[in-house]
Amino acid sequence: MIQDTIAAISTAVGEGGIAVIRISGPQAVDAAHAIFRSRTDIRAAASHTVHYGNIADPRTGEVIEEVLLTVMRGPRSFTAEDVAEISTHGGYVSVKKVLDLVLQQQDVRAAEPGEFTKRAFLNGRIDLAQAEAVMDLIRSKSDRAFSIALKQVDGKLSRQIRTLRGEVIELLAHIEVNIDYPEHDVEEMTSSYIREQCIKVISQLDRLLKTADEGKILREGITTAIVGRPNVGKSSLLNALAQDNKAIVTDIPGTTRDVIEEFVTVGGIPLKLLDTAGIRETTDLVEQLGVERSRNALNDADLILLVLNNHERLNQDELELMELLKGRQVIVIVNKTDLENRLEIDRLGQLYRPEAIVKMSVLAEQGLDSLESAISSLFFSGLLETADMTYVSNARHIALLKQSKQSLFDAIEATNSGIPIDIIQIDVRSAWEQLGEIIGDSAGDSLIDQIFSQFCLGK
Amino acid sequence: MIQDTIAAISTAVGEGGIAVIRISGPQAVDAAHAIFRSRTDIRAAASHTVHYGNIADPRTGEVIEEVLLTVMRGPRSFTAEDVAEISTHGGYVSVKKVLDLVLQQQDVRAAEPGEFTKRAFLNGRIDLAQAEAVMDLIRSKSDRAFSIALKQVDGKLSRQIRTLRGEVIELLAHIEVNIDYPEHDVEEMTSSYIREQCIKVISQLDRLLKTADEGKILREGITTAIVGRPNVGKSSLLNALAQDNKAIVTDIPGTTRDVIEEFVTVGGIPLKLLDTAGIRETTDLVEQLGVERSRNALNDADLILLVLNNHERLNQDELELMELLKGRQVIVIVNKTDLENRLEIDRLGQLYRPEAIVKMSVLAEQGLDSLESAISSLFFSGLLETADMTYVSNARHIALLKQSKQSLFDAIEATNSGIPIDIIQIDVRSAWEQLGEIIGDSAGDSLIDQIFSQFCLGK
Repeated sequence: MIQDTIAAISTAVGEGGIAVIRISGPQAVDAAHAIFRSRTDIRAAASHTVHYGNIADPRTGEVIEEVLLTVMRGPRSFTAEDVAEISTHGGYVSVKKVLDLVLQQQDVRAAEPGEFTKRAFLNGRIDLAQAEAVMDLIRSKSDRAFSIALKQVDGKLSRQIRTLRGEVIELLAHIEVNIDYPEHDVEEMTSSYIREQCIKVISQLDRLLKTADEGKILREGITTAIVGRPNVGKSSLLNALAQDNKAIVTDIPGTTRDVIEEFVTVGGIPLKLLDTAGIRETTDLVEQLGVERSRNALNDADLILLVLNNHERLNQDELELMELLKGRQVIVIVNKTDLENRLEIDRLGQLYRPEAIVKMSVLAEQGLDSLESAISSLFFSGLLETADMTYVSNARHIALLKQSKQSLFDAIEATNSGIPIDIIQIDVRSAWEQLGEIIGDSAGDSLIDQIFSQFCLGK
Repeated sequence: MIQDTIAAISTAVGEGGIAVIRISGPQAVDAAHAIFRSRTDIRAAASHTVHYGNIADPRTGEVIEEVLLTVMRGPRSFTAEDVAEISTHGGYVSVKKVLDLVLQQQDVRAAEPGEFTKRAFLNGRIDLAQAEAVMDLIRSKSDRAFSIALKQVDGKLSRQIRTLRGEVIELLAHIEVNIDYPEHDVEEMTSSYIREQCIKVISQLDRLLKTADEGKILREGITTAIVGRPNVGKSSLLNALAQDNKAIVTDIPGTTRDVIEEFVTVGGIPLKLLDTAGIRETTDLVEQLGVERSRNALNDADLILLVLNNHERLNQDELELMELLKGRQVIVIVNKTDLENRLEIDRLGQLYRPEAIVKMSVLAEQGLDSLESAISSLFFSGLLETADMTYVSNARHIALLKQSKQSLFDAIEATNSGIPIDIIQIDVRSAWEQLGEIIGDSAGDSLIDQIFSQFCLGK
């Protein structure tokens, strides 16, 4: 039973017209009442109503903000608890002052990251996979990643997991009957039933796992490095990609200066670009640092966009770079096709498959669509088109699905080897628990804590 | 009469648990209804109620988000129009998708920066000075700046301006009676009345203007440069100041990489630090660029913090820097007082007033309070303590108050010179209009457009 009341700023930090402070828990409405001056007594207000008034310090009477206050009573709220949301004029000082005052009220403490969603989970309003998808929604960098997460929030993945668990529990029940009343069954029949049932569940697990690679890419983006020698157009390409996707640029707050990740989407596929600061910074210095810097960016990349100049012959640096890139996922971008061809295209043809060579003129805005299909053919197997599909995208879920599949394989093998049925039962039970861990039915406290600690504050 | 409906994201951009899209205008509720799937028909919903449901594309039926939708009917709303606010899961993609769909609805267009507040002004809910203070609230970087803005939003400044205008209009009325019915009055009496009344208003204007310097500083911050040769502790000082004031660090969105302004507050006084990137960047290189870089940062600064090393004698660079700083507002910070004194303190004493020399040990966390009082005594005249005071803080308001004061002086002078009363009337009328421009009663459309265009989007 949850006894304390938590509060946090739930909107993004920064200048905005509105910022929202969320308070959730048994004391939420009382705490809000204590600092709220209005014509109405919000303790008596109906659920889901909004009230205009001032936030004032009850000790000094000093008015701190002019706000709208929303009352939502549990279980009809995000957390399934009583919730008060205070909508202030945006800006750092305003929300900070109001939050400070809220946190001075009795039995109210600062929420931990993800704690509102954790309460929604602990109060049974959503399961663990849904809770994780809530965070994916917020963090999603492309429309497709967002759609996948939204379906998971809606419980589509959870329902499939529950169906699979249902089939595993049926199998478990059958096995237990056999253990308890061995005389009721013929062992042969049980063995073949175990095999059949396991294979059936495995094939469904496989169908889910087939979506995992794409799902994971859509969720997390393809880690991409843009490399090439100075002046081939790396920064122009970067700008062209970014321009097409204004503002899908992420700054991890708190670091203020260092952009850690920058996202662009190419035809709906999110690319997480590495060392874009490096590429941008050097624009004015005619990309002085070119190749050396490129090498450093290479290690972490899943995809490498090697930019070459159509108007110049390959040089030693580039040949070295190509040597270095052997065995990696590379798309060669032959840029500046608006200029006369001097690049040895034939030689490239010997090193790369035709679909991995994209001719472009970033300047003339030609060829971005070819780049899109090159990336798509490298990373996707056509699954993308089926919009209605349930994707698995979370690495934790994928790992558990694989473990569960392995447990069922173990069960089959054990059956084939004539191992006693109460040993086989252990494998089947593992599969059941691993599936349960995805939706949180059989997840330990420390796992749950760990998952929610990765959430953002205020959610 | 406003006919169209506007929409924008009203929360700050970034990852957060909640983001809010605001729709305002005659079609606000209908537009929201068209894309909202819920148990209740929001067109029939009471004002100030919140509804749970999904946002779905009406053409395809595709569900786009799970949201809370708030209906507020004019005139009981921020804009005094019908307003629908859609509260989505935070994050870039979510709000973008919902906003895009909202903007596809009939008669809905994207709001311009400040347009919601502009409507509140045009609909007569707030005056111009209040509207400007709304933006100051959002942008405020310190508690005091926030308090000043909040009082202005509340209309405290506006009421004083209206009182002053009342006195000026009384004078105007008196003058007009004299023009229309010269036989009713003795010209001598009118002259002395004009003088008296003008002086009375001028003294009240003076009282307001006395708060202007402090008000402007509290609103905008003191533009401050931290200078000194390499390795004296500039970056440690910067970090110490910033640490004391976590997160009052502003990043102008859209530029992603270049921090243009960074704010810290020292004892409630906001400092706008220049070239902090330069200072931070060089930390690892033992502040290689020291003095040269310092010189560049100097031009724009109102306050210069010159950091010296207590443990070393003054060198040529520092002497040059001190020569360069003559006539500027300088606080000399003698850092590293935890180390043996080798710096020529006497020599400093000849160049700077004692209150402008602050001994500190940033490392030992000593002396920050001395810095605070040094800044305070340099920029404030003790006004800060009177918390209940109405401050003028906006440069536009200050300029108009000064103009108005000048107009009244002109009227007095004209009276003294025996200039005809219908000419004097022009000066008095100017004063009345200049005061009116502060609260927007006599402000032209282009001025109003220009003011609101400086607002942030979504407010």
